[in-house]
Amino acid sequence: MPGRLNVAKADHKFAASNQSRRIQFIVVAGVLQLAFLIIFGIFVRYDSAADAKYIGDPDVVAKKRGWSTIVRGCFHLHDGKITFGVMDLLYSDFSCVGILISYGCVLGKLTPVQMMIMAMIQVPIFVGNEYLGLEIFMVKDVGGSIFLHIFGAYFGLFVSLVTFDRNVAGHRSDSTIYHSEIFSMIGTLFLWMFWPSFNSAVALQDSRLRGVINTYITLSSCTVVAFLLSAALTEDRKFLMMHIQNSTIAGGVAVGSVADMQLQPWGAMLIGVVAAIVSVTGYRFLTPKLEKIRFHDTCGVNNLHGMPGLISGIASAIACAVASREMYGDSLFVVFPAMAPANTTVTVSLLNGDHEIKTGLGRTPGTQGLYQLAAIGCTLAVAIVGGTLTGLILRLPFFDSYDRVTYYSDEPHWHRPEDGFPDRFTQLIYHKGETQVVPEHRVDDVTLRGATYEVKVNQAYELQEAN
Amino acid sequence: MPGRLNVAKADHKFAASNQSRRIQFIVVAGVLQLAFLIIFGIFVRYDSAADAKYIGDPDVVAKKRGWSTIVRGCFHLHDGKITFGVMDLLYSDFSCVGILISYGCVLGKLTPVQMMIMAMIQVPIFVGNEYLGLEIFMVKDVGGSIFLHIFGAYFGLFVSLVTFDRNVAGHRSDSTIYHSEIFSMIGTLFLWMFWPSFNSAVALQDSRLRGVINTYITLSSCTVVAFLLSAALTEDRKFLMMHIQNSTIAGGVAVGSVADMQLQPWGAMLIGVVAAIVSVTGYRFLTPKLEKIRFHDTCGVNNLHGMPGLISGIASAIACAVASREMYGDSLFVVFPAMAPANTTVTVSLLNGDHEIKTGLGRTPGTQGLYQLAAIGCTLAVAIVGGTLTGLILRLPFFDSYDRVTYYSDEPHWHRPEDGFPDRFTQLIYHKGETQVVPEHRVDDVTLRGATYEVKVNQAYELQEAN
Amino acid sequence: MPGRLNVAKADHKFAASNQSRRIQFIVVAGVLQLAFLIIFGIFVRYDSAADAKYIGDPDVVAKKRGWSTIVRGCFHLHDGKITFGVMDLLYSDFSCVGILISYGCVLGKLTPVQMMIMAMIQVPIFVGNEYLGLEIFMVKDVGGSIFLHIFGAYFGLFVSLVTFDRNVAGHRSDSTIYHSEIFSMIGTLFLWMFWPSFNSAVALQDSRLRGVINTYITLSSCTVVAFLLSAALTEDRKFLMMHIQNSTIAGGVAVGSVADMQLQPWGAMLIGVVAAIVSVTGYRFLTPKLEKIRFHDTCGVNNLHGMPGLISGIASAIACAVASREMYGDSLFVVFPAMAPANTTVTVSLLNGDHEIKTGLGRTPGTQGLYQLAAIGCTLAVAIVGGTLTGLILRLPFFDSYDRVTYYSDEPHWHRPEDGFPDRFTQLIYHKGETQVVPEHRVDDVTLRGATYEVKVNQAYELQEAN
Repeated sequence: MPGRLNVAKADHKFAASNQSRRIQFIVVAGVLQLAFLIIFGIFVRYDSAADAKYIGDPDVVAKKRGWSTIVRGCFHLHDGKITFGVMDLLYSDFSCVGILISYGCVLGKLTPVQMMIMAMIQVPIFVGNEYLGLEIFMVKDVGGSIFLHIFGAYFGLFVSLVTFDRNVAGHRSDSTIYHSEIFSMIGTLFLWMFWPSFNSAVALQDSRLRGVINTYITLSSCTVVAFLLSAALTEDRKFLMMHIQNSTIAGGVAVGSVADMQLQPWGAMLIGVVAAIVSVTGYRFLTPKLEKIRFHDTCGVNNLHGMPGLISGIASAIACAVASREMYGDSLFVVFPAMAPANTTVTVSLLNGDHEIKTGLGRTPGTQGLYQLAAIGCTLAVAIVGGTLTGLILRLPFFDSYDRVTYYSDEPHWHRPEDGFPDRFTQLIYHKGETQVVPEHRVDDVTLRGATYEVKVNQAYELQEAN
Repeated sequence: MPGRLNVAKADHKFAASNQSRRIQFIVVAGVLQLAFLIIFGIFVRYDSAADAKYIGDPDVVAKKRGWSTIVRGCFHLHDGKITFGVMDLLYSDFSCVGILISYGCVLGKLTPVQMMIMAMIQVPIFVGNEYLGLEIFMVKDVGGSIFLHIFGAYFGLFVSLVTFDRNVAGHRSDSTIYHSEIFSMIGTLFLWMFWPSFNSAVALQDSRLRGVINTYITLSSCTVVAFLLSAALTEDRKFLMMHIQNSTIAGGVAVGSVADMQLQPWGAMLIGVVAAIVSVTGYRFLTPKLEKIRFHDTCGVNNLHGMPGLISGIASAIACAVASREMYGDSLFVVFPAMAPANTTVTVSLLNGDHEIKTGLGRTPGTQGLYQLAAIGCTLAVAIVGGTLTGLILRLPFFDSYDRVTYYSDEPHWHRPEDGFPDRFTQLIYHKGETQVVPEHRVDDVTLRGATYEVKVNQAYELQEAN
Repeated sequence: MPGRLNVAKADHKFAASNQSRRIQFIVVAGVLQLAFLIIFGIFVRYDSAADAKYIGDPDVVAKKRGWSTIVRGCFHLHDGKITFGVMDLLYSDFSCVGILISYGCVLGKLTPVQMMIMAMIQVPIFVGNEYLGLEIFMVKDVGGSIFLHIFGAYFGLFVSLVTFDRNVAGHRSDSTIYHSEIFSMIGTLFLWMFWPSFNSAVALQDSRLRGVINTYITLSSCTVVAFLLSAALTEDRKFLMMHIQNSTIAGGVAVGSVADMQLQPWGAMLIGVVAAIVSVTGYRFLTPKLEKIRFHDTCGVNNLHGMPGLISGIASAIACAVASREMYGDSLFVVFPAMAPANTTVTVSLLNGDHEIKTGLGRTPGTQGLYQLAAIGCTLAVAIVGGTLTGLILRLPFFDSYDRVTYYSDEPHWHRPEDGFPDRFTQLIYHKGETQVVPEHRVDDVTLRGATYEVKVNQAYELQEAN
């Protein structure tokens, strides 16, 4: 038959390749799940003490952050909080956040199996770096901007660099549609609303409400400037949804490491302004340039997490260096435990009563500031090396990567439902060369015949020709 | 005019039938609302003691569960929490959940009036069965898997069986579209996130955080296995949204009755695995078979609530039978009040201090396990008989049921808005046989004339022919 | 070329006008943000005492409501909570709500710059009126129905009146589509769920749970009656989404001022019934009439906020006038601080212990009722005068208002993404006069040529003609 497309052979090849990827997913997910079940059965028990303690007790926060926590955390996108108590659940969720940030760099480009393996490799590196920073360096990072956002962003970016394929950039399917943009705003709103709680979840005592207030002010300020710059920096001076969805919440990242510190409202506001500037200009000018040197960043993670995280880290170094007893009162040693005297315990009076402070390291504010910078450098190094190595592993032939026709597509792994209402389509039918509008409940079935639709009308309401 | 469809008469008949259904709704809803207003005015007052007590006080939980509670609860889909205090609000919400589960079996098949009457009949049956189980049998069911999920699922399934019409199965409108599937994931995410709170809302003392942790682990484990099996059990090894939306949260049901017990992380994980297996295989293999024997289940309630509920019930019997003082410490009598000594009060030391425990029944763990099984059997019997009778009532001619053309349709009861943006459609117009793209703001009105659109251009920007 | 539309000139004019609006936005937003940053830097500091106090402490609620609070509040849609402590954040959010309500009247009709300036003018008027009512009149308004809802609604309505242009009414773009209506229900659900918390956020002591319960009952009752009337009052007896989205939550407004008072369940229920009646009849009959006399109300704010707010105000006058020591017990002076003795402090026993009550004004219940009425009248007057003046300011030529082609359109200020999936469109292609369905991943690019699409097939899967 002339004009008929001979697509059978190509289809078969396409289907076969995806079929092997799908079976790989089933096998790898199954093996991992079984392994975790066995490991949990043998090693993991409730921590009955932590069970009854709510978030906010410094003892619970401080203990139990050794190598054992490496098996803890989120191993898949949807799963695998290995946990002992409520604080462990919380820290596992934090690991999850770090991984999800990295996922943003490679979304639509790696297969589910590659993403699972990536998370498996990333978790111990993440936990190790966090352990080094929080326990050894005793660095302040209440909202995780250093250990979650910087780490996640640059780990993901280097995985993306190493697994780069020239077909992922400018791909036709890497675009957006109206309903999808509106839908995404739910995510932005929820992140906005819950960011103050996120940034103050592990803050202690008097500093917790400060964490809420600082984050709130930063986000507000960031939102206005993000709108302003989104219009100012595009050629036709119109808002771009990408900026509104992402840069309006960059302030939450940029205030993360310093949320529980004495910023004063103007300080929080200033951080928001800087975050918005960096984020919108990043999307507008930096991302296209990075793409050219193979740093392809599907969700613009560098602009929402990477650079705002760096701002937060630098801000935390400054805020630590200028901290003083005059500024914080007795809560200084609660906010900065490493500044507590090394040899004697002191009793401080906080708003909810007197507390005895554990011995610290007797650090000066300046030293604490340097440690903050050291943690940033260390996190960057670990993320870059870790991401590069992980990317190399993910390029092994075993993984059967996506190719040009499967990038950014639901097709290889999802049953895709119809785009439009199945019963609406038939409201407009062609009958003997004339268009007729018929209510949907009249129509039993519609078949495409050449360029017209053949409509089978249901028996209850037979169509009759008038004359 | 040849080719013109003579649809006026049939339309009239269709409209008349729906009109009577709509008027019936107005009358029934009005009468019920008026009745409740009068009943509330005469009988219902604040419980000022409960007013000031927060959830978690055993006294409040235990009291006031008599026949008076039968008028309590949710009488409509959206309404009617008759309540005295905060705990009553909570238990009314629980009744609501039970009814909404049943609604899942009959959605799109019963008229609003039938659904209102169904709820009116179901609430007293639900409350009676719950009273029998919680107060007389003293059964443990912290997350309501037995009294909410099993009851709701099989009540609804038998209503569906009795009201079955061969036209509901495989109906053309019982299908889905892309945006709708994505939108539904919001529901799945919220259920996932809030399920730990739901399962621990009425847990007491030390067992509350255990409820959170167990539910969290079960859901995580269930999610991974649901993805895995969704791919493994479909012919082309692709994920099916139906599984992802439903089976990923089946673990929340399956851990419901045992959430506050000593499962250990591996136990919670195992329950999640079993829940996912049962749920996905249920959707894949069991639901089509059940449909053939007239158990039509619109939302697959049996796979998300029915069978996972049974798993939870059986797990609770086992967990009760192996409970011991060694395992629970002093909190044994808090978690299992029926095991407390029958004659003397004991004082136990919990994490938040010493508490005097009310006298119980001196039950052994084994006996408690048998009572759990008895409650399952009893709930199944009540649900099946109640559902069958309710279904028979709903088949009375009074109700003017839906028919083939109105199933699963918004049409009979809703003003349905347009599917597409009214102003976008006109961007592409045909002008003198040639296609022209015109910005939307140029177009005043569009009329369908035969197979082409007649476009009225607005005056501000007149179209001029160039030559 | 004949048939070609000469649209270039008109387009240019259209673009130029919007361009100036967009630049105006950038300048105004920038100047305001800079001004706030400077004001914050000079004037605003943490209130370290409030920092550590949670909501519910009467001292915090009562103090600091002077002129200084005028700079506080929300200055833009997304921004600008100027704040000192947590209570200030809360009250700033309240100001925001008032402004967002007013925005509902003018949405799609004012430019972003006009809306920013409107908020800038409205905030000090709002705060001044609230200060007069809460501090000088000592009026009860726990859920803000008087100072938020009445004020916001009539302020916005008079801005809309003054800025009225005959083209805004019945505009073709002021319509709705299916996905948008469904999406909006998320908002309705969230407002429904969180309204009990909103109405009891600033309630004190024993009255907080009463606030939750009353609001819950009112919303439930309102929902049923709204459904009932939505069907009863439309000609074809079908539900209208507009009623379901808005009138079902009118009860939350109508119970706002009295949520913490002794309504009894039947009282709360009755308020819900009245709210639904007023709201649905308002949408059905009043709004079209108001539009004719130039009160164009984009979102029907008068029906959701205005009239239900008036009901709440009147209900509060009645509830205050009948309040007595018998009804409230010792908590009378907590709920109505103005009724506390003027000269001596009294100690009252509440459910959580004994409290010393601050001296009040020794008001009688009747006097308190009259003050409630006075506050309503005062709020209406301030809103009407303020809204009218604001509207006059917004009509200044400086503002470059929208015109007929730009009302209700994303076009002037947003990059608008495509409506449909870019890669799906090509699944159905015309090849040599015959329709062929080709999987999306086959197609590289699609171009519109006359009435048909020219499809460029990707190289990996070349199309071959069979013969």
